[in-house]
Amino acid sequence: MKKENSLSIPMGDDGRLAADSPASALERWLAQKLYEYAGSPPLRLVLWSGDEVGADGNGDLRLHIRDRAAFYKLLADPALHFGDLYSIGRLEVEDDLVAFLEHVYTGVAETNEQNWLKRVHTLVRRDPRANTLTGSRANIHHHYDLGNRFYELWLDREMQYTCAYFPDPAMTLEQAQLAKMEHVCRKLRLKPGDRVVEAGCGWGGLARYMARAHGVTVRAYNISHEQVGYARERAKREGLDGRVEYVEDDYRNMGGEYDAFVSVGMLEHVGTAHYAELGEVIHRVLTPAGRGLIHSIGRNRPELMNSWIERRIFPGAYPPTLREMMGIFEPRAFSVLDVENLRLHYALTLKHWLERYERHAEQIARMYDEAFVRAWRLYLAGSMTAFTASSLQLFQVVFTRARNNELAWSRAHLYE
Amino acid sequence: MKKENSLSIPMGDDGRLAADSPASALERWLAQKLYEYAGSPPLRLVLWSGDEVGADGNGDLRLHIRDRAAFYKLLADPALHFGDLYSIGRLEVEDDLVAFLEHVYTGVAETNEQNWLKRVHTLVRRDPRANTLTGSRANIHHHYDLGNRFYELWLDREMQYTCAYFPDPAMTLEQAQLAKMEHVCRKLRLKPGDRVVEAGCGWGGLARYMARAHGVTVRAYNISHEQVGYARERAKREGLDGRVEYVEDDYRNMGGEYDAFVSVGMLEHVGTAHYAELGEVIHRVLTPAGRGLIHSIGRNRPELMNSWIERRIFPGAYPPTLREMMGIFEPRAFSVLDVENLRLHYALTLKHWLERYERHAEQIARMYDEAFVRAWRLYLAGSMTAFTASSLQLFQVVFTRARNNELAWSRAHLYE
Repeated sequence: MKKENSLSIPMGDDGRLAADSPASALERWLAQKLYEYAGSPPLRLVLWSGDEVGADGNGDLRLHIRDRAAFYKLLADPALHFGDLYSIGRLEVEDDLVAFLEHVYTGVAETNEQNWLKRVHTLVRRDPRANTLTGSRANIHHHYDLGNRFYELWLDREMQYTCAYFPDPAMTLEQAQLAKMEHVCRKLRLKPGDRVVEAGCGWGGLARYMARAHGVTVRAYNISHEQVGYARERAKREGLDGRVEYVEDDYRNMGGEYDAFVSVGMLEHVGTAHYAELGEVIHRVLTPAGRGLIHSIGRNRPELMNSWIERRIFPGAYPPTLREMMGIFEPRAFSVLDVENLRLHYALTLKHWLERYERHAEQIARMYDEAFVRAWRLYLAGSMTAFTASSLQLFQVVFTRARNNELAWSRAHLYE
Repeated sequence: MKKENSLSIPMGDDGRLAADSPASALERWLAQKLYEYAGSPPLRLVLWSGDEVGADGNGDLRLHIRDRAAFYKLLADPALHFGDLYSIGRLEVEDDLVAFLEHVYTGVAETNEQNWLKRVHTLVRRDPRANTLTGSRANIHHHYDLGNRFYELWLDREMQYTCAYFPDPAMTLEQAQLAKMEHVCRKLRLKPGDRVVEAGCGWGGLARYMARAHGVTVRAYNISHEQVGYARERAKREGLDGRVEYVEDDYRNMGGEYDAFVSVGMLEHVGTAHYAELGEVIHRVLTPAGRGLIHSIGRNRPELMNSWIERRIFPGAYPPTLREMMGIFEPRAFSVLDVENLRLHYALTLKHWLERYERHAEQIARMYDEAFVRAWRLYLAGSMTAFTASSLQLFQVVFTRARNNELAWSRAHLYE
């Protein structure tokens, strides 16, 4: 057996990590470095041995690292392994998960970028999965075909799985999702009889809203089989099936001619390599005076998606910067008319989702298992925190063709 | 003497261009190519010899090319020489200058980009003059120190030489310039006591408006000596000299700490190579919850300034794309909150300026000369046309620091 205070990694006689022997001096030093990597936030890391590093804050925030192997995994790739280890309970957060994540996100953002651990981790990060036609189908299936029943438990009645709009933060989620859809329609200046095409329509709520509230016809594309089935069924039930058509196909196969193009929450799955192609699709289908709106999670500067979310929750996802988004518009010289950043609206949306989710946690555990419940809890809480304390943004970009002079003289009509 | 129909260039016995001999077949063919380069618009080119190419439109638009040398200059670099030759009367536009320019701008924009003449001209274009500290001073002096008296003749009372804001297009220019300043103040969410810094303040009208209407203190930078003199004098006269300080210095030498950063119509003179530096300046002076606004002419995709305007009117000017503007914000991860494109507002502003300018054309000819009057007429009419029929945009970009969560829940406050 190794001495407890040596600078080596304790291993058993079989050459494997000694699961629960006391932490060595090296391990306590590494724990301290891990803590500093997270920006020395007001919380404590508690090792399997009971050793602690860190500092008390207002609360009693503690991250319990239950075994030695979990500790080394966390060191090797915290962004990826935190999620996996948390999901299976080898990491536990004592007290408030959201507060814990806020401290860590804030701390990591503020740490010196030259931090050695950060540099190592940047090197081992990989690009997200490619979004070719078949890749997209696999990536989308992974997330959106989990079962409509699961999402019904915690989304609003219109099944909007995108940022809501809270002009008044006291609004309910139901109100804010309706407000979001109305805001999008006003930005597109829809009028009765307009033909609208939607790329990535989710469960079809926006398409139904546009048809019902603004008298337009909609052709909406989605490659998630389960979502399209749900959307068609519901449009039929609501008597909208003559005015809303759901097409189970990739947006790149879009045909026809439309007065408006809209895409809410699809761009995150497109991949910057395909932005010019998306611009070509829009160029192909938009009338000369047509308007377009793209609503997407974004960044202030290029950054990869958290690798755990990218691998386990949202394969192929990448939130672009505004600069990167211009790769859609510049090649065909589309004119960007309006960009609105709804960052805090997404944080509030996620707060509502998380509360609803927690109310159904037991039921979800019965549908899947406890690790699934914990993984999704972390994903929702982590996303919420990324919008308040880290770098996620939510951009709504309105555009039109360069030569279209039929423009509103102000944006006051959005607020009437 | 050469034969009239040969494919050669008619020259006199002295080896110089024969000024007024009949156009050769080659020249008529080149005139046809020049016409096609402009997208075959509904107007006629009339050569010095009386030969015409082109087609009639609704009106009687004609471009008279008064001599052979003017014709060859126009062929060699139409964007540059049109302005020079028009200014000195060797080119004349019969009927309506604005309508003529609209047809040509539209036509050029629509012509196939592979057009041989266009490709040749792209090769001979040069980059704008550099905006180093001394270069900026020379460039700005060229334009803004022409004499305050000149600008007073056709600008509004607040001497706003930037795009006005016409939420109602029937507004007067005076109203629309006040509306612009108010719109900027609301976007910055100014409150009494705020400290504001302005980069490139022109004749100081916005700084005075902010102090008077919103109770803030302003430090405003400008490197134009004449403008700063005017601004100081006027602030004193209006009893604002305790609250508005005009500094005759480059924005890069800014010091202090401010709740808001504003720059209206300066970015066009900054040059993309200096955008990151501008971002650093903002990073240095803005408080943690500070807001910023940059208002600039822009493009849908990268394009050089019209070379005549860049050389004769606005040395060093370059209107950036939104993508290029992100070079200011990304390095320090500023969060872009709002982008508004006021393209048609600038066209309307220019329409007002042109009308006022024409009312004082005789007076301006006495102050300078006829060529000056014609050059500025072309510049104003050409700019107006570029906003309606070509590719100029007007972007107002609002931003804040990434970690600032003191954000408005909607933009409704801009429209109350």
